[in-house]
Amino acid sequence: MARLVMKFGGTSVGDIERIRNVAAHVKREVDAGHQVAVVVSAMSGETNRLVGLTRDVSPLHDAREYDVVVSAGEQISVGLLALALQDVGVAARSWLGWQIKVETSDVHGAARILDIHADGLEAQLEEGRVAVIAGFQGISSAGRITTLGRGGSDTSAVAIAAALKADRCDIYTDVDGVYTTDPRVVSQATKLARISYEEMLEMASLGAKVLQTRSVELAMAHNVRLQVRSSFDAADSAFPEDGIVGTLICNEDEIMEQEIVSGIAYAPNEAKVTLLQVADKPGVAAEIFGPLADAAVNVDMIVQNMSADGKTTDVTFTVSSDELERALAVIEGLKGKVEFANLQAVPEMAKISVVGVGMRSHAGVAQKMFKELAEKGINIHVISTSEIKVSVLIDSDYAELAVRALHAAYGLDDETIDT
Amino acid sequence: MARLVMKFGGTSVGDIERIRNVAAHVKREVDAGHQVAVVVSAMSGETNRLVGLTRDVSPLHDAREYDVVVSAGEQISVGLLALALQDVGVAARSWLGWQIKVETSDVHGAARILDIHADGLEAQLEEGRVAVIAGFQGISSAGRITTLGRGGSDTSAVAIAAALKADRCDIYTDVDGVYTTDPRVVSQATKLARISYEEMLEMASLGAKVLQTRSVELAMAHNVRLQVRSSFDAADSAFPEDGIVGTLICNEDEIMEQEIVSGIAYAPNEAKVTLLQVADKPGVAAEIFGPLADAAVNVDMIVQNMSADGKTTDVTFTVSSDELERALAVIEGLKGKVEFANLQAVPEMAKISVVGVGMRSHAGVAQKMFKELAEKGINIHVISTSEIKVSVLIDSDYAELAVRALHAAYGLDDETIDT
Repeated sequence: MARLVMKFGGTSVGDIERIRNVAAHVKREVDAGHQVAVVVSAMSGETNRLVGLTRDVSPLHDAREYDVVVSAGEQISVGLLALALQDVGVAARSWLGWQIKVETSDVHGAARILDIHADGLEAQLEEGRVAVIAGFQGISSAGRITTLGRGGSDTSAVAIAAALKADRCDIYTDVDGVYTTDPRVVSQATKLARISYEEMLEMASLGAKVLQTRSVELAMAHNVRLQVRSSFDAADSAFPEDGIVGTLICNEDEIMEQEIVSGIAYAPNEAKVTLLQVADKPGVAAEIFGPLADAAVNVDMIVQNMSADGKTTDVTFTVSSDELERALAVIEGLKGKVEFANLQAVPEMAKISVVGVGMRSHAGVAQKMFKELAEKGINIHVISTSEIKVSVLIDSDYAELAVRALHAAYGLDDETIDT
Repeated sequence: MARLVMKFGGTSVGDIERIRNVAAHVKREVDAGHQVAVVVSAMSGETNRLVGLTRDVSPLHDAREYDVVVSAGEQISVGLLALALQDVGVAARSWLGWQIKVETSDVHGAARILDIHADGLEAQLEEGRVAVIAGFQGISSAGRITTLGRGGSDTSAVAIAAALKADRCDIYTDVDGVYTTDPRVVSQATKLARISYEEMLEMASLGAKVLQTRSVELAMAHNVRLQVRSSFDAADSAFPEDGIVGTLICNEDEIMEQEIVSGIAYAPNEAKVTLLQVADKPGVAAEIFGPLADAAVNVDMIVQNMSADGKTTDVTFTVSSDELERALAVIEGLKGKVEFANLQAVPEMAKISVVGVGMRSHAGVAQKMFKELAEKGINIHVISTSEIKVSVLIDSDYAELAVRALHAAYGLDDETIDT
């Protein structure tokens, strides 16, 4: 017997038929003798509808009232799923954020979970009843409903799993696992059986949008074993005994044979900004990036190099293409405060990253990347490395070619697929 | 300065434009210096949509989960109205049943309000902020969301007004007040400026469906002055200083010149059932009406008379036409337990009632009714009287003729309208 948290997103509960399918998945685990807590999102489209209503009333809305309106979406889906479970003979009850209660900060619309009082849930699980939990919502110290921000249901599920000391948190989604790279780009992409938290964080933040980054961070901090699996699998399939059918995101030491490189991630819409010959003095980075942060521009890579004269420095950073104009406006506004000779911007770049915890102990991973790209005639504009990843910025025209070449070069291609 | 509760139904908050109109009504009262609590229903159609979803999942649903789903409707509308108020510069916040809290019984789907902790609301009103309250919902002693049953928002409004010791509770609806009879039947029907609780109860339960009967009972018990007024009046109309523009439902002693008869009510779809020559012994009425109540058949009038032989009695009762078949099935099932010679049923009858507290002190009210109906050649099948009303059952074909004749006979016609 295990204690499981199962999480289903909006598409999985999009209509009554799909809610029944979710109930079948839950019933399978209950019948196998497991204790189950289910975390659900709002029915797909519902959150957008509710957000639209608040916008129609008032574009500059009070986030506390926004949360009251938007959290109704999950309230509806937990009630319906509890009914669907009862309908197939599974004892179940719904729990809202304030009932559990899920204490959060009071940053409405983007609250952080502070504490979860899981006593009530635990007592219910011990009785063999399923707890159906509204994701995405909590309660502030002032007793107001809060929401965690878009996609927060993944985070809810992991936090609930941590509070319940669950054996595993299964995230049911529209893909069947985490792949070595985007299968739409490389048909030989293979599904990873296991991946470490650190690798998943690099993969996720680099564009493989399977899981919310926050939820992976939280899982890592609380050692929650997280599985990404498909909600489209028939609920009565012959699944393996250990329940691992998708990709398990776990501690490195749970991964027996660690590949050197786990995957190739890419972010296609990056823009590069370079400030040439910036006067090199203490605090200059803060003078540049402080105002960008204040303007809510999301800066991704930052690279700084000495320039030819030795007295100035060149600073390069990337932002997503659609934030380029705002970023440039901020930089223009710095004139007079920050000295620099020239400003260059390239709007259409792609970031390609090779990710793997194995590279910590293996030399030559970066070198193989550079050589492979050179052989294909692809010019590298910027290089940035961390302990478990190497990222390069290239012209976006070459992005797919680069991903395919690297996927093959690191031995990630599925050899069973004809090309 | 007064303390007001304003209640708006689903049609009044049916879309964003209408929600803005509600905000304008509230702003008018706030600008006049009043403390205001607003009680709202779900946007029209929303409750039906949510009820439909629960039915689709499971026809025999757990009422606790039904309440979780359905109460989301009011949650959405309070958030939106709070936003709309803020948008026109009125300080406001939303309150859900569990936040206030509105303690109810645990009869989910049809809960009764037990207590309202109004401290939080009161503090907010004293600060000059508007409290926007979700009608129709509360919280059980087990901490689950409850709903009061369809139309319960009127009851919520009156209970909130009682708890806040409000000076008045204004029910904004799609009619501009309570009329002497149905204006669709009698074009000379006139709007009553005031009507006593007792009369309103007789009018409401007799078919003038302006207010929930429960809410009027509650208003009477707690002495809440209740006004029925139109939500379609332009919010910036030149309303009288005392705020009375519709019909005020209040204590008799607040009504200066009491008319003998206040109105003519009628219920068009009644069916009459008569048991002839029932063996007259103690407990026979209970033996008949107990099983009917158990079968959830709503019995309206009950009349019992001695029959010709002096040893048996004739029992007549009415039910709404669409419950006649169920009622007859119950009566058939009594054979063997209750002795009676014959069973008669007439499916198409109408009940016409003359209502007025003035008839307590004035003789001849009933006699005038019988004479008037006789003059029109209308046969009376059953007569039933209470202190403030006389009801007769007639063939439904004559219903409208009877209502018009009685309306004129008791001097209720608006003389300013040409006929």
